[in-house]
Amino acid sequence: MNSFGVVFKVSLFGESHGNSIGAVIDGCPPGIPIGPDDFMNDLSKRQSGSKGTTKRRETDKPEILSGVCNGVSTGSPIALVTRNSDKISSDYEDFKSVPRPGHADYVAGIKYSGFADLRGSGHFSGRITWGLVAAGVIAKLILKPAEINAKLISAGGSTEIDKALEKAMSEGDTIGGIVECRIINPRKALGEPFFYSVESAISHIVFSIPAIKGIEFGSGFSAASMKGSVHNDPFIDNNGRTSTNNSGGINGGISNGNEIYFRAAVKPTSSTGVTQHTYDFSRDQMTELGVKGRHDTCIALRMPVIIEAAAAIALADLLLIDRGINGSRKFQL
Amino acid sequence: MNSFGVVFKVSLFGESHGNSIGAVIDGCPPGIPIGPDDFMNDLSKRQSGSKGTTKRRETDKPEILSGVCNGVSTGSPIALVTRNSDKISSDYEDFKSVPRPGHADYVAGIKYSGFADLRGSGHFSGRITWGLVAAGVIAKLILKPAEINAKLISAGGSTEIDKALEKAMSEGDTIGGIVECRIINPRKALGEPFFYSVESAISHIVFSIPAIKGIEFGSGFSAASMKGSVHNDPFIDNNGRTSTNNSGGINGGISNGNEIYFRAAVKPTSSTGVTQHTYDFSRDQMTELGVKGRHDTCIALRMPVIIEAAAAIALADLLLIDRGINGSRKFQL
Amino acid sequence: MNSFGVVFKVSLFGESHGNSIGAVIDGCPPGIPIGPDDFMNDLSKRQSGSKGTTKRRETDKPEILSGVCNGVSTGSPIALVTRNSDKISSDYEDFKSVPRPGHADYVAGIKYSGFADLRGSGHFSGRITWGLVAAGVIAKLILKPAEINAKLISAGGSTEIDKALEKAMSEGDTIGGIVECRIINPRKALGEPFFYSVESAISHIVFSIPAIKGIEFGSGFSAASMKGSVHNDPFIDNNGRTSTNNSGGINGGISNGNEIYFRAAVKPTSSTGVTQHTYDFSRDQMTELGVKGRHDTCIALRMPVIIEAAAAIALADLLLIDRGINGSRKFQL
Amino acid sequence: MNSFGVVFKVSLFGESHGNSIGAVIDGCPPGIPIGPDDFMNDLSKRQSGSKGTTKRRETDKPEILSGVCNGVSTGSPIALVTRNSDKISSDYEDFKSVPRPGHADYVAGIKYSGFADLRGSGHFSGRITWGLVAAGVIAKLILKPAEINAKLISAGGSTEIDKALEKAMSEGDTIGGIVECRIINPRKALGEPFFYSVESAISHIVFSIPAIKGIEFGSGFSAASMKGSVHNDPFIDNNGRTSTNNSGGINGGISNGNEIYFRAAVKPTSSTGVTQHTYDFSRDQMTELGVKGRHDTCIALRMPVIIEAAAAIALADLLLIDRGINGSRKFQL
Repeated sequence: MNSFGVVFKVSLFGESHGNSIGAVIDGCPPGIPIGPDDFMNDLSKRQSGSKGTTKRRETDKPEILSGVCNGVSTGSPIALVTRNSDKISSDYEDFKSVPRPGHADYVAGIKYSGFADLRGSGHFSGRITWGLVAAGVIAKLILKPAEINAKLISAGGSTEIDKALEKAMSEGDTIGGIVECRIINPRKALGEPFFYSVESAISHIVFSIPAIKGIEFGSGFSAASMKGSVHNDPFIDNNGRTSTNNSGGINGGISNGNEIYFRAAVKPTSSTGVTQHTYDFSRDQMTELGVKGRHDTCIALRMPVIIEAAAAIALADLLLIDRGINGSRKFQL
Repeated sequence: MNSFGVVFKVSLFGESHGNSIGAVIDGCPPGIPIGPDDFMNDLSKRQSGSKGTTKRRETDKPEILSGVCNGVSTGSPIALVTRNSDKISSDYEDFKSVPRPGHADYVAGIKYSGFADLRGSGHFSGRITWGLVAAGVIAKLILKPAEINAKLISAGGSTEIDKALEKAMSEGDTIGGIVECRIINPRKALGEPFFYSVESAISHIVFSIPAIKGIEFGSGFSAASMKGSVHNDPFIDNNGRTSTNNSGGINGGISNGNEIYFRAAVKPTSSTGVTQHTYDFSRDQMTELGVKGRHDTCIALRMPVIIEAAAAIALADLLLIDRGINGSRKFQL
Repeated sequence: MNSFGVVFKVSLFGESHGNSIGAVIDGCPPGIPIGPDDFMNDLSKRQSGSKGTTKRRETDKPEILSGVCNGVSTGSPIALVTRNSDKISSDYEDFKSVPRPGHADYVAGIKYSGFADLRGSGHFSGRITWGLVAAGVIAKLILKPAEINAKLISAGGSTEIDKALEKAMSEGDTIGGIVECRIINPRKALGEPFFYSVESAISHIVFSIPAIKGIEFGSGFSAASMKGSVHNDPFIDNNGRTSTNNSGGINGGISNGNEIYFRAAVKPTSSTGVTQHTYDFSRDQMTELGVKGRHDTCIALRMPVIIEAAAAIALADLLLIDRGINGSRKFQL
Repeated sequence: MNSFGVVFKVSLFGESHGNSIGAVIDGCPPGIPIGPDDFMNDLSKRQSGSKGTTKRRETDKPEILSGVCNGVSTGSPIALVTRNSDKISSDYEDFKSVPRPGHADYVAGIKYSGFADLRGSGHFSGRITWGLVAAGVIAKLILKPAEINAKLISAGGSTEIDKALEKAMSEGDTIGGIVECRIINPRKALGEPFFYSVESAISHIVFSIPAIKGIEFGSGFSAASMKGSVHNDPFIDNNGRTSTNNSGGINGGISNGNEIYFRAAVKPTSSTGVTQHTYDFSRDQMTELGVKGRHDTCIALRMPVIIEAAAAIALADLLLIDRGINGSRKFQL
């Protein structure tokens, strides 16, 4: 189940310390100008390097294996790969008997009967999101002139992100954060109820990203405390603009043309430097575990562009489905 | 896109004031005892009737059209329908030119070029969840011995639900709520990363339910404020039990055998009795709108069993997929 | 796997002697005029009654449960059902221990662990094609102005169909036949290589129909004996018309605008009156079996409209997919 | 639509003269021993080199990018690629205005609005089947102990294949052929009616292969001339063995345990050396076309292993689906 989408379909592959990671994008309309450099803006935002991110360095430059000719999409699947180079796999064997708390080590061991590649967290690594971001670049081109902007709005429970980072680093611990994503100038009428609402599509792909614990659209959880008379967004012009936007630009699972926005909660990186008491399955007893290696203090720092990509892929799929069923509609209220 | 699932697949159809509503369940294993009465326990929980719910009354009894013979599932698709009887469709034509704030009237008009059946909110009505609950009954049987329990834990921002309801009713307004769902004794190793994590599957189907604004698993949004050393759930025995359960029973998108739990935010019913200022698209000017008809003060009251059904369907699909790929595994850590 | 299609999706349910049979059509564009009577032309062609067909009589009139309002499609799923009335289920229990040669009795027993509903062949009955034909009516409306015509071109190896039928009936035996289907004035550019070529889509759904043993497009099997210089279809005008049509209107899996045509081979009805020597699984010995009941001498007689429906559904799905990815293209060679 | 399969899913990408071609295999059970050398037996059968095949030479050795660790499948997607090296792209620009009869040039031009990569026939090239064969190697491992054997049984209408080839080569023309494929010792109960019968699954993927014009299972087209009393396959033991096998091992779309077999018709290679009269779309007049370059005299020569792969992939998908729904059943008639 490493594919997402019905018409615009993204497949991901790769492991953190394997040969390569990549993405195959199917259903991309022909004639879209795409070059290797177009990817680097977003891919570099996803990269580590700044304070609070891992010291692992990858060039991350994509090689376009197919689907682009003379600088434009051809209509056949676009395959993108990048090599893994800066990998240090020495420490991971231990995690088979002492799975790291909060990590996928334990479930990966069970699910794949001991055959999972756990080096660098294997296919569970955040590194797999490279392909998501690369595919997101193409999705964003399809969605133009809509724009998608995500940003980290808090970390470790604070809006003073820098301070929170410094504190966590000084403690050798890790922190989470909240990312907000806004789709400005979205098309109307995207979303296919009952089961492929805008929220269903976006939440499905956002929850594929490792470390996401929650998502809310528009008013989100605060809606539960509001009255209907306050929550409802009154229409104020004949283009469907509303005076408030508690709905997050979505009614009945369908975009209404107002800004779409949502927030996602990112948990603290599981690989903390603080010693943990957990179970040693081979010795059948409790043990102490200190996770070494290069890790992000706050994985949420690298999330905004990943979440933008996820939203873009979901919306691009909805766009092509809607166009398929409805053609270019002219109806207006 | 009125189907959900890869192997265990649920399709819904129907409109609020149409002839019938129903569900087709495909991929149900043969040999499961199922009778019409098995459905009524859950379907009656979904029904209105108690304080704060609509006065519309439907018998809701399912007719089994296919897929069950001699009281057991046969392996062929199970079609379930119920007739709509108690419907009053007089008022809905107006909503084409004065779409109700918070409702799907506007987007349905645009998306379906004026052809949508808007009577009683048509295919956007909460009534469509009848089929979801009916399908959920079958999914729960597949998931046994796991148990799924959801309940309303707050309404209108208060845990004193009764008082909150009374206040809202006295004001002629509506309120939202928060539903918590727990899957007790779940199977391990469900979930298919990258794109079909437990959270992806559950959130996808939960966000198909009208009025849902947010979802969070385990620690959820509070994870964003926690340190990794606190958030991680240490393993404490050789069956993978953990001492805390911030992960909500899911690591890396895969169930770890501990209780799975999540919360969903439900917005206040859009149809409030309070007068609203909104746009009249046919006259191209602002107008006043008072929504009459029979509506729920708090739609969240009826949500728990719907959310149970959604979770059950998602997990049943994951169970059949996992069994397909991995057979009956014997591996243990 | 009782659904077909990616965007225009048809789900079938029902058993031969169950309560009802039906179809759910999802992804139908809104605004298409559809009434109950529109279905009867095709449904009556599928019915028995003429020489060589079963004496079972069903009214077959569809009830539209959803998705149509004020005589037009609304954009939400269209559910169609018809009741089974004229059923005689007395004889079928025997087939569990003495499965009929050529029938699905044996495999249905194994596959569904003895729980399959075998009365009247259950979900394996040709009766299930009622829903296919009903869905095909809608697909044909989507494909307009293309026309789809199928006919029986031989039966029992002879083009003198009437004589072949009479001979078979006099012998108490059954015969097969060949159906040819032509899509006149098809849209260009339908078909999605690599895996969803026009031939892939059509053959997939045609082989879902019980009793189909082969399919060939254009020159078909005779292509294997031809030279390339003869088989190739030269273009003769700037609209892509070709002087021959060995390709059957399809190049590289994509429609080229010329007539699409294919032939399907239909086996003789398995339920022959002639005594057969076969195995009694409960007694573990050979036995004699004489199949009684009401059966078609030549099921191929009723196939043309079923095959038209199958082709229409496949092409309607390809049309909506192509429009989704490519919009309304203007490019010309 | 460059993916096939529901649980065992194969995605293909690449163009004939692009950077690379490849396949991503998703849903492969963990623990299957796979090495780069395992692929070469089948991949070399697909290669050219013998009499009647193109002079283009590719090493075709796969690079395993992901999904295999320590020589076994890990449960995460397996990505395989090979570089294109021996390509000569000079001549293809002409085919945009003078599309080759029988080729995809014309439809590719229209469908992809002039943006298709037509060098070496691009994504329509038989070269794309490299990935199919590679994926087929893995599918065959999943299907063990079943064996799949295909062979060319006639070429140019003759069973004296060598003579037919020599004659065609001496004329500078091309010929077609017929491939027969047998699955020996198949599992029972594969196939998911209504829409995913064994024949539906196999025909879908076989018709994805360029140049296929027809397929027939068991008795195939000859069934149309047979009587039911002759066509039916009587059971002769308590394991479901039949004395004849006109059904091709499939009843009601489900494997009955007897040998599955089918035949596929392959058209003559479109690129014939014989001069053709066809249309010049840029000059809007008829013209003469002589196709140069390196081409197969009889593409059917290379088809057997491709068709084996296609059948294996279809059956592996059906196997995982059946196991998902039915577990490991014990029922016997």
